Amino acid sequence: VTASATIRVPLGASGYDVVVGDGLLADLPGLLERHCHAARYAIITDTTVAPLLGERMLANLSHVAPCTLCTFPAGEWNKTREAWIDLSDKLLAAGVGRDGAIVALGGGVVGDLAGFVAATYMRGIPYVQVPTTVLAMVDSSVGGKTGVDTRLGKNLIGAFHQPRGVFADVATLQTLPKPQVAAGLAEALKHGAIADEAYFHSIVAQRERLLARDAGALHDVIRRSIEIKVAVVQDDEREQGKRAILNFGHTVGHAVEAAAGYQLLHGEAVAVGMVVEAELGKAIGITDPGAVHALSEAIRAFGLPATLPAGLSGAQLTQGMASDKKARSGSVRFALLQRLGAMAKSGSAWTRTIPEDTLAQVLGSLSS
Amino acid sequence: VTASATIRVPLGASGYDVVVGDGLLADLPGLLERHCHAARYAIITDTTVAPLLGERMLANLSHVAPCTLCTFPAGEWNKTREAWIDLSDKLLAAGVGRDGAIVALGGGVVGDLAGFVAATYMRGIPYVQVPTTVLAMVDSSVGGKTGVDTRLGKNLIGAFHQPRGVFADVATLQTLPKPQVAAGLAEALKHGAIADEAYFHSIVAQRERLLARDAGALHDVIRRSIEIKVAVVQDDEREQGKRAILNFGHTVGHAVEAAAGYQLLHGEAVAVGMVVEAELGKAIGITDPGAVHALSEAIRAFGLPATLPAGLSGAQLTQGMASDKKARSGSVRFALLQRLGAMAKSGSAWTRTIPEDTLAQVLGSLSS
Repeated sequence: VTASATIRVPLGASGYDVVVGDGLLADLPGLLERHCHAARYAIITDTTVAPLLGERMLANLSHVAPCTLCTFPAGEWNKTREAWIDLSDKLLAAGVGRDGAIVALGGGVVGDLAGFVAATYMRGIPYVQVPTTVLAMVDSSVGGKTGVDTRLGKNLIGAFHQPRGVFADVATLQTLPKPQVAAGLAEALKHGAIADEAYFHSIVAQRERLLARDAGALHDVIRRSIEIKVAVVQDDEREQGKRAILNFGHTVGHAVEAAAGYQLLHGEAVAVGMVVEAELGKAIGITDPGAVHALSEAIRAFGLPATLPAGLSGAQLTQGMASDKKARSGSVRFALLQRLGAMAKSGSAWTRTIPEDTLAQVLGSLSS
Repeated sequence: VTASATIRVPLGASGYDVVVGDGLLADLPGLLERHCHAARYAIITDTTVAPLLGERMLANLSHVAPCTLCTFPAGEWNKTREAWIDLSDKLLAAGVGRDGAIVALGGGVVGDLAGFVAATYMRGIPYVQVPTTVLAMVDSSVGGKTGVDTRLGKNLIGAFHQPRGVFADVATLQTLPKPQVAAGLAEALKHGAIADEAYFHSIVAQRERLLARDAGALHDVIRRSIEIKVAVVQDDEREQGKRAILNFGHTVGHAVEAAAGYQLLHGEAVAVGMVVEAELGKAIGITDPGAVHALSEAIRAFGLPATLPAGLSGAQLTQGMASDKKARSGSVRFALLQRLGAMAKSGSAWTRTIPEDTLAQVLGSLSS
């Protein structure tokens, strides 16, 4: 194990550590002992990660405690209540009791689904996140959001359940397909754009090392992104609403993702979503035109999409955003960039609505 | 509305009021406005309660906010994940969003299931409990335990989710079948036995008025039982384990309930469970023999079972207790009565194990 970094998520009694390191998983038994001691562990993972890491981890952990490997079919379309029932039944059959804990091993889908199993198993048992994608490391594994999708939308069913620890081993990224590396870095670019201009530029400067999965470069990015996310979430404990800035690129991104039937990776959808939302901000005089240009260039440099997928109309997306917000009883609001490293505040709010014709015009200009 | 009583459940930011009254539901819109304001309400109830109270409540609430009635088939065997999926989908189809709230209208099964829907809908939305059985009023509606059963056991899947209020209208008990009135009073007798001897005797003295559903007598019992439950739960915030005394009668009761295939009401199973557990305490010299006699007499006086159901063997029950505890990774432990109004403490623990031969002997002596 090389040097590792620890970021504390300060949530009082529910606080926990995020540990980032290269080769960290060699000491998973020790990490579990310190952060999430349990009489028995269930590793939950998907069919992609199980052969790459799951079976080795099962053998490794079995030396220290009874351990079970529970696998479900990979893919966002399997993040369902049916998969949750199947996994919960596997834990019951394996005899996991109230003194058991879950290890969520995989990308964002695994973390959301395994976290929801942990949140609801015998009224909640402890779990840790072991993210194995850049996206999960920089974003979804931190924050305690768990859940599943229904036909009507993403994450409509779920719970808040904080993990006892997040262990991000950059060595696991060596087997991650390159498009997934780039897609995860879209969220890192987002963190730079919303909160730290120097960080944004350093990601762009390190592009080649990052895409080549250089462990040191990835380590630095993951650590800094987690620091930013934790700081924003912490800030919002008093000031209701600031965490909305983490949604930059996501209002449009989610609609793109849904309309494209999950053919795009989440990070790819967020990439184009950021470009659209930056252009929206520019169109209403909020976002610095130089920032829009820099953001768009950076996204292209990582091979990420900066325009809408072919065949996707602006009207389709507008409808998608409206129906998602309708399901949640909100209006369509956008967190807008002011300049690189700073989001725009409108009075006391961090989001605002956009005139329909502006939205239609910008979406039209970014269609392929 | 006649005079009502309010008991505060002091849980910091999650604290809430339990309001007990006769005719309380006439002011449900006002109670919701004060305790659980929402843009839209979903009333969740079962097919027994819907025609008796649900449809009237829907009409009543629709005057103040958009409102939907979601019904599932009555019966403990329907407290499943499948029913939870069906109800969640009904809420989604009705357009209930994050600014919506749930009204759980019915007995313990409705409260557990509707509470679990509330706990997991869009990562948790507010809800109130409107219990319509004696059992739900004196026990299950208070405490925030929600969940569903699986084939392997009761409440194996669930979450803690505190309601915003509990509104117990004794007028709703006028249509409750008599066996259910008596079964609910078994939990009230338990509250007296574990914490308040005078209350225990007053329940027995009021037997005829209670079984005749006299509103004043029921009001007094429900109020006092809730006070006792709240005090015990509150006590346990520091002293880990005291709330185990609320389980008096339940270790055996749950096994009886499961072995009898839910042919017995929960309160009936708890009644015989209390007699068995009192005899266990007597057998090992912990429980005052006079208390065992008084408890057994009281249970018979309410027409509740004081012996095991015909055809149920002691071995079956012992196995049932062991397998339930195995699922939850515990050993079979009993909270034992010392005398009427006081539970026995063993060192720092409120529960203890019982020698196998003592258990077999007592179960044998109480077989029908």
